Amino acid sequence: MRKVTLATTQMTCSWDLDDNIARAESLVRTAANDGAQIILLQELFETPYFCLEQNPSHFEQAKTAQTSRVVQHFSALAKELGVVLPISFFERAGQNFFNSIVIADADGALVSHYRKSHLPQNPGYEEKYYFSHGDTGFQVADTKYGRIGCAVCWDQWFPETARVLALKGAEVLFYPTAIGSEPANPELDSSRHWQRVMQGHAAANLVPVVASNRIGTERGKNTEITFYGFSFITDTTGAIIATPEDNKSDSHSTATLDLDAAAQARTEWCVFRDRRPDLYGALLSLDGADSRSPITNLTKA
Amino acid sequence: MRKVTLATTQMTCSWDLDDNIARAESLVRTAANDGAQIILLQELFETPYFCLEQNPSHFEQAKTAQTSRVVQHFSALAKELGVVLPISFFERAGQNFFNSIVIADADGALVSHYRKSHLPQNPGYEEKYYFSHGDTGFQVADTKYGRIGCAVCWDQWFPETARVLALKGAEVLFYPTAIGSEPANPELDSSRHWQRVMQGHAAANLVPVVASNRIGTERGKNTEITFYGFSFITDTTGAIIATPEDNKSDSHSTATLDLDAAAQARTEWCVFRDRRPDLYGALLSLDGADSRSPITNLTKA
Repeated sequence: MRKVTLATTQMTCSWDLDDNIARAESLVRTAANDGAQIILLQELFETPYFCLEQNPSHFEQAKTAQTSRVVQHFSALAKELGVVLPISFFERAGQNFFNSIVIADADGALVSHYRKSHLPQNPGYEEKYYFSHGDTGFQVADTKYGRIGCAVCWDQWFPETARVLALKGAEVLFYPTAIGSEPANPELDSSRHWQRVMQGHAAANLVPVVASNRIGTERGKNTEITFYGFSFITDTTGAIIATPEDNKSDSHSTATLDLDAAAQARTEWCVFRDRRPDLYGALLSLDGADSRSPITNLTKA
Repeated sequence: MRKVTLATTQMTCSWDLDDNIARAESLVRTAANDGAQIILLQELFETPYFCLEQNPSHFEQAKTAQTSRVVQHFSALAKELGVVLPISFFERAGQNFFNSIVIADADGALVSHYRKSHLPQNPGYEEKYYFSHGDTGFQVADTKYGRIGCAVCWDQWFPETARVLALKGAEVLFYPTAIGSEPANPELDSSRHWQRVMQGHAAANLVPVVASNRIGTERGKNTEITFYGFSFITDTTGAIIATPEDNKSDSHSTATLDLDAAAQARTEWCVFRDRRPDLYGALLSLDGADSRSPITNLTKA
C-alpha cells in the first residue's frame, strides 16, 4: 500500500496580492495539518483572473520562474511543510509570456516547469491575448509522494492531455483552473459539463484527478465573471470522492488514495495493453485526416 | 433545427436464435413506433455472448456480411421502417474472424462496415481467442438522419476512438456492448465506471453518445456473466438523458436531440479550434515515448 492524501483548494482573489498569498498559504497550512501531502492551489492565484479582459497593463504581473514571488514563496512553504505544491504563475520568458506551472517537491526543489498548451480565447477568457501557446509539451514529475502530471485549466477539456500524461506514468492528474460564468452566454452553467470531462479522463485512464477552481465574482472594465468552484477529487473510476461543502468561502477538501491499488487497477483493467496506436494517426491532425492509417470502407469497396 | 430521435435497447439472449431475432425486431418496431429514427441494438445480439468462454464450436456462428442472417434481416427491417440500424454481427472473412458492425441506412443500404479495433481478453471476455484485431480503422457514415460513428464495446473505453470519430465529423456516437459481472472479480460492479468513460467522451467532444448493453445471466461450461444493462443516451455535455427504468426485461429508451444545436455547441465551445496535434505524438506509442515533440524540462535544463 502506498497511501497518499491529496487536497484541492478554492479561494477568492482580489488585487490585494499580499492577501491572496496569505490566504493561499493559510489553505495549504490547513490542508497539510489535515494530513495532505500533495496540495493543489488554483490557476493564477496570485492575482484576479486578469484574462477576463484584454488590458495591456496586466503584462506587468508576469515574472520569470526565478523572480516570481509565488514560486519563491510556495516552494519555501512546500519545503517547510514537507508537501508537494504545484504553483501556477504568469511567466515572462524574454519577449514571451506563458500561463505556467512549476511543481515544488517536498524538499522545495522545482521538479517540473510546464507551459499551458491549450489556450482559450472567448469573451471573458482572453488568454490568447496574454500568452504564447506552451512549448514544453505535457510533463510528469517524480515527487516524494508519486509521479504526478499537471496541466492547466483549458488543458482539462482535452482527452489528449490526460492520455499523454497517463502514458508517461502519471499516477495523479492535477488541474488548477479558473472557470465560471460565460459573459457571452449568461444562461450557461458549464460546471457539471466541466466535471464530467475530467471524470472521464480519470475513468478512461484509471488515474485519480484533482481539480482546483477559483470562487467569487471578479470584474473588469466591461466584464464580470462569477467563478463556480466545484473543485473535486476523483478515484480511478471517475467517481467524485471529495468536493467542498459550498462554493462561497475559501476551503479545502482532502481524499486519501492508495496509489499501488490504483496502479493495480490500471494493470487489471487492461486498457493500456489494448490501445491501437496504428489506428490513431488522425489524432495528429486538426480535421481527422489520416494519411497513415489504411482506413477503408469494405462495404463500398 | 435538425431534430433526430435516437433509441437505445437492451435485451436478454439465448441459444434460441430465432427468438433473439424476433425480440430484437420487436424492440426496433416499438422504438420506431415511438418515433425513433436511429435505433441501437446491442453487440452480437444474434447469439448469447459466446466469448464468455473459449469454445471452438462457436466459430460456426460466423458469417460473411453477405450471408449474415442478422445483416440481411435487419437491413430489410431498416428499409421497411425507414430507420437507421447499426447491426453487430460475428463476421467471417476468409480465414479471419472479426467482431463487426455494418450500418443499414433508412433505405436498407449498408453504408459502413467496421471491425472492432480494441479487443478484450480477460476471464469471461475472451475476444482475442475469437477475433482478429479490426483492420478498418474508425469509420463515420452519412445516413439519412446524420453523420454517425459506431464502435463496439471495448472500443468504448478508449478516448482515441471517440476523438477520431468526432474529428471525422460524427454527430452521434453509438456503442453496442456486452458487459456485466467479472468472473475473475465477482465483487466488481463496473457499471458506473463504464458509463462515466462514455459520458466523458460525449462531454469532451460535445457529441451525444448512445450505448446499448445486454441484460440477463448467461452461462458457459465454467463461466457465468450477468450483464448489467444500464444502456443510456447522453446530451453534448455528457449528461444521461435517457436510460431504461430497470435492467430486468427487454426495453428501449428514446431521446430527441437537435443535431444543429449540437454542432453549434461544438463551434461555440471552441475545443476543436484549440487542439495541439504538434504535442500529441506520444499518443501514437504504447509507452508514451514521443520522438517528435520537443518535450523539455526547463527547470532542470
